[in-house]
Amino acid sequence: MLVQTYRDMLSAKSVIRSLAEFASARGAQIGYENVFDYSLGNPSVPVPDAVTQTMIRLLQTKDSRTLHGYSPNPGIYSVREAVAASLKKRYGIPYRADHIFMASGAAGALAHAFRLVTQPGDEILTFAPFFPEYHPYVDLTGAVLKTVPPRFADFQINFERFEEMLTDRVMAVLINSPNNPSGVVYSEETLAELARILREAQNRYSHPIYLISDEPYREIVFDGKSAPCASKYYDNTIMCYSFSKSISFPGERIGYVAVNPACEGAELMVPMCVQISRGTGHNCPASLIQLTVAENLEAVSDISVYETNRNLLYDCLTEAGLTVVRPGGTFYIFPKAPIPDAGEFSKLALEHDLVLVPGDTFGAPGYFRMAYCIDTEKVERSLPVLRRFLAQFH
Amino acid sequence: MLVQTYRDMLSAKSVIRSLAEFASARGAQIGYENVFDYSLGNPSVPVPDAVTQTMIRLLQTKDSRTLHGYSPNPGIYSVREAVAASLKKRYGIPYRADHIFMASGAAGALAHAFRLVTQPGDEILTFAPFFPEYHPYVDLTGAVLKTVPPRFADFQINFERFEEMLTDRVMAVLINSPNNPSGVVYSEETLAELARILREAQNRYSHPIYLISDEPYREIVFDGKSAPCASKYYDNTIMCYSFSKSISFPGERIGYVAVNPACEGAELMVPMCVQISRGTGHNCPASLIQLTVAENLEAVSDISVYETNRNLLYDCLTEAGLTVVRPGGTFYIFPKAPIPDAGEFSKLALEHDLVLVPGDTFGAPGYFRMAYCIDTEKVERSLPVLRRFLAQFH
Repeated sequence: MLVQTYRDMLSAKSVIRSLAEFASARGAQIGYENVFDYSLGNPSVPVPDAVTQTMIRLLQTKDSRTLHGYSPNPGIYSVREAVAASLKKRYGIPYRADHIFMASGAAGALAHAFRLVTQPGDEILTFAPFFPEYHPYVDLTGAVLKTVPPRFADFQINFERFEEMLTDRVMAVLINSPNNPSGVVYSEETLAELARILREAQNRYSHPIYLISDEPYREIVFDGKSAPCASKYYDNTIMCYSFSKSISFPGERIGYVAVNPACEGAELMVPMCVQISRGTGHNCPASLIQLTVAENLEAVSDISVYETNRNLLYDCLTEAGLTVVRPGGTFYIFPKAPIPDAGEFSKLALEHDLVLVPGDTFGAPGYFRMAYCIDTEKVERSLPVLRRFLAQFH
Repeated sequence: MLVQTYRDMLSAKSVIRSLAEFASARGAQIGYENVFDYSLGNPSVPVPDAVTQTMIRLLQTKDSRTLHGYSPNPGIYSVREAVAASLKKRYGIPYRADHIFMASGAAGALAHAFRLVTQPGDEILTFAPFFPEYHPYVDLTGAVLKTVPPRFADFQINFERFEEMLTDRVMAVLINSPNNPSGVVYSEETLAELARILREAQNRYSHPIYLISDEPYREIVFDGKSAPCASKYYDNTIMCYSFSKSISFPGERIGYVAVNPACEGAELMVPMCVQISRGTGHNCPASLIQLTVAENLEAVSDISVYETNRNLLYDCLTEAGLTVVRPGGTFYIFPKAPIPDAGEFSKLALEHDLVLVPGDTFGAPGYFRMAYCIDTEKVERSLPVLRRFLAQFH
């Protein structure tokens, strides 16, 4: 018989996907260029040319049997070495190939990280606003995701509520900085305080609490800054990375788990990921894609487009009187809606062909997300429409 | 704390991997060309040139944002359409895109198929000799894999034992034809009888019993024949395919689940796979790889090499007096060892730099597997060594 768990999930429709479908249907009607679709986090800047050239060269010069042959379960060794060397150079943490497990994007990395450190019934804490897919990702492992309410002033961590919720049942804490949907980058102070609280709790409960750091937006940080590295603040950190956003490669499903060498059980964790992958049917990202990113670990797409879009939207939204935390990175902004019901607000926006995602599923009702990974020209055309739309709420 | 299930699995060492490691170490000593390594099922013939040219053309001509952009969860629609059309044309079964879920190789396809139709505690039956990875694949879903003993005469199905084991607890039956490790192709009679028994059992138990057909070797069939298609014999069939062997693409992790349109719940199964994939962290095979296979669905590597190797080895082994079922396809042969302990036999073979895998983990103690996906020149050089080695058991 078909399994009820998955069958039941079919009726729950993703808000983001419904909005994207609206945008697509409306686009067919009036021309897609006339729909201001801020719904989907799909990178809009090209893949760096060096990445494409690497792929073509590999295909033209390598023996096809080696190039497309089986990757060892934790990933191709030279690729893991390259990733470790790059992280070591950048963060001064002594990663070795043994600490790197190549995964199918951040989703694949997280699927392995959760199974490494939690059993069914264990709790994982994360901080609102958060990526809604965390729920199925965690729920389907049997662990329980609990979400700490937002600190609305700046979307850093609400430490008071966090400390209350950090019970003996919590085996892992999941963070996502730079953050989807807020665009906020956790400060050094935030990470230091988080680490302090976790260390205290580890002592209190006499078991490790792992910090799972989901970092797909790590390279998309604005104003000439870079994102502080969670692994530098807390030993028991499992970094989950994806190349989806940094080189506009989301379809190629490539990322990694990087286990902090100082992690409790560090030497076991990559071999354990290999065992986990036998159950998930994972068996490595594609070989060609692994070899390609290994040669382009410093490559980043032209993210200045996202920064320009951030500036345009932040200025427009604040001038319109909205409460907005200024994003430090990503391609998201997460303003407070001018009416309490963000779902209703989002519906009204559709009448102006503005596709905005209500914040409820991100754990922040009353807010809405705009994904500004679209052409700047389109952002500019959307501004007068946005201004007109927002004016009615004065 | 690190999860004990996966930690415990670390101590169980794969026999095949240990032998491959021996071959590799010994190769470093005496030159790899002098080690007759029959351990690993890694394709040895090149990828069809058309496949490589497709990839280069896609990279040179497509907008990188589209080419490497997010794939929809069940796979790229045009790819699913192409797969469905190809299967429909070939087998006369009315597959549509809705019945196809693109997966990361057969391992990924099976991970989804098992979760579709079994809950923890349910039984899955398979037939020895079988691919040893089926155990972790199934065990880690919580279902229970039980194995029907071999029919040694021809490695078709032992129907007597099968009928005894086909209880009310069995929710799925897993077959693998052409078979790893025996190389045997299930005959039309075998599939028809299997279907008859399954239909009877469905009626008896008043619940569907799904046939999961793992077909990575479908295209590697010898003597001008082709493999009978399980889905044609039994409606409730879930086909799991991989391009790993047919186009020598194992590292690129690409395959699919094809749900028979006549399957009970057919219309729900691909959407359910999408839900399952949120838990496994799967999220599609790589976009570039999906688009590439869609243009090369009829392409097959030069498998005549495997047929030549099969002929050489079958003749040599039978002439040496061994009991051998003649493989109809794959790149495996599975003879009976001339002494009862195939592990001991395999150890003795290593003294001649012959790497043979004992059949115990395949569910057929006393037999051994040779993977002849190696150069014919090497097979030829191995024959006198093999003859000398086998002569001592007369």
